[in-house]
Amino acid sequence: MTNPALVDVTRGQLTESLHRGSVAVVDAGGKLVCGVGDFDARVFPRSAIKALQAIPLVESGAAEALDLSDAELSLACASHNGEEVHANSARVMLMKAGLTEDDLECGPQWPKRMEDAAKLILADETPCGLHNNCSGKHAGFLGLAKVMGVETKGYVEPSHPVQREIRNVMEQMTGDIVSEDVCGTDGCSIPTYASPLNSFARAFAAFGTGEGLEPLRQDAAQRIFDACINEPYMVAGADRFCTKVMEGFRGRVFVKTGAEGVFCASIPELGYGVALKCDDGATRAAEVMMATVLEVMLELDESEAKLLDGLVNPPVLTRRGAEAGVIRPRQEFLQMLKGALPAN
Amino acid sequence: MTNPALVDVTRGQLTESLHRGSVAVVDAGGKLVCGVGDFDARVFPRSAIKALQAIPLVESGAAEALDLSDAELSLACASHNGEEVHANSARVMLMKAGLTEDDLECGPQWPKRMEDAAKLILADETPCGLHNNCSGKHAGFLGLAKVMGVETKGYVEPSHPVQREIRNVMEQMTGDIVSEDVCGTDGCSIPTYASPLNSFARAFAAFGTGEGLEPLRQDAAQRIFDACINEPYMVAGADRFCTKVMEGFRGRVFVKTGAEGVFCASIPELGYGVALKCDDGATRAAEVMMATVLEVMLELDESEAKLLDGLVNPPVLTRRGAEAGVIRPRQEFLQMLKGALPAN
Repeated sequence: MTNPALVDVTRGQLTESLHRGSVAVVDAGGKLVCGVGDFDARVFPRSAIKALQAIPLVESGAAEALDLSDAELSLACASHNGEEVHANSARVMLMKAGLTEDDLECGPQWPKRMEDAAKLILADETPCGLHNNCSGKHAGFLGLAKVMGVETKGYVEPSHPVQREIRNVMEQMTGDIVSEDVCGTDGCSIPTYASPLNSFARAFAAFGTGEGLEPLRQDAAQRIFDACINEPYMVAGADRFCTKVMEGFRGRVFVKTGAEGVFCASIPELGYGVALKCDDGATRAAEVMMATVLEVMLELDESEAKLLDGLVNPPVLTRRGAEAGVIRPRQEFLQMLKGALPAN
Repeated sequence: MTNPALVDVTRGQLTESLHRGSVAVVDAGGKLVCGVGDFDARVFPRSAIKALQAIPLVESGAAEALDLSDAELSLACASHNGEEVHANSARVMLMKAGLTEDDLECGPQWPKRMEDAAKLILADETPCGLHNNCSGKHAGFLGLAKVMGVETKGYVEPSHPVQREIRNVMEQMTGDIVSEDVCGTDGCSIPTYASPLNSFARAFAAFGTGEGLEPLRQDAAQRIFDACINEPYMVAGADRFCTKVMEGFRGRVFVKTGAEGVFCASIPELGYGVALKCDDGATRAAEVMMATVLEVMLELDESEAKLLDGLVNPPVLTRRGAEAGVIRPRQEFLQMLKGALPAN
């Protein structure tokens, strides 16, 4: 099945590039509210499910045993910029578990923004695992391993108790049992299991509402959701989609990006979970797709509408800052989403 | 028309993302040798045609009047990394025309590689127009304006004599007359005119062979082709596709990348010109598409085969450098190209 074109990138009066993709919106009962494209195909969720991967950390009591703050729990769900505040917070998380950056197995990564890279360069430093956008997640994994009393070394391996536990929780949340055949290695070296988008959407509907979850898991999901809403800067950072949306919507939505054009969201007031993927892996398109879903699905106040407008139609700029085009959802995509609204 | 999927991005045993696109291979007589997808659709060529945009600089005698070296002429055709050697060479080109970096209208850009950005940061400098990947092209435009005796200010505007002259040459080379409707503004602020891929391929067949060109233009094309072949590092730089291919093929091919997934090439020994575009604008896919065209179309010696193998199937790596997947051409794409070989 060929997924529909959902996002255009224009220049002048023409469409210069286009992005295809698929979307699943599922309600808390697990019913499909809106499906676009081949939402049944298996997709690697990558970093878009970090909040679900943090459930064992909280549910096990490890987060409490380690006295993790909202900011640190939010960082455990983050794909952050590697700013000073992110790297330092990851270091503190590791300290609380009696560990150091040397225990991280995610690999190094330069901070996303030049100004943060410049700080390292001027201090004659090179980036380490703390600057990896996944360092908070890894610090959480290590903390969980410590509290579980298992060997921390090799915590990224599929056979390690931490990864086995996360796989169990993911299967329970998505309702999809995964085999080794659909296991890939993520950029930060942990396993990533491909499931259909509607399974991930179902998981995020449950994550945002607690519906259908055991009390202990309900509490864990609520704790993680609240931590991200309270500390959205830790989930991403300066000038980032996830931070801007969670700041601007003040608890109405949880959103999380993943590599290769994946995006997930919870919209508790509607009981919806959302999962989407841009076929070609482009983040610019996945962001416009997610912003469009939120714009169509939610009643917006003035500031929310203004925020989303900039994210639904981001400009294409020249290096002098002039507008040369725009990235925008296709009319057909808007129609598909609008057709799924309750009034219809 | 939906263009076919040409490139897969795998992770583990699955395809994680895919890229669609179109390709035109045309011979020196203007005949289509191989067409993939909607090669008749208009595409912004962006930086892939810089070598053709340099023709007026040479044909007018300006390059000779300014005493431009091969390295400088190669830089005029470049999308370079903004390394010291590139920025310094652009500065010298401007000096030869009695101008400075203040005359550049391309806007600033950070060097592509962190080690080059670090040099600026450690010197307490910020990037300027010289570091813009298009600075050599702009220095060429400014030199041409000077020798033409026209106002240099506003040389990026479509109505400026330099841009009008380039438009004329492009129309002659492509055989496609363009209107204002298909004019967009490029990232470096100059006009970019959309034409069909087969028109660009025709232009690059003529560029590489000289066939069908007036003697003066034939000489200009040859001079530009040779300059890029002699100084491939100036066309791009360290660890870049265009530099590696032109170094490795020692005159057998000219290749040039453009933003939003465009790629053009000349293969003089076959008399072919090539133009391709990845629908979604991804450079990673456009590179694999071009490498695949070269691999199928050319008889390769051992070192050429080894070079191309790495470019046809680049690995997807974790941040620790482990192989998590591969970017590779689809079998259908290989079949389409092989079907166009003379033996068939």
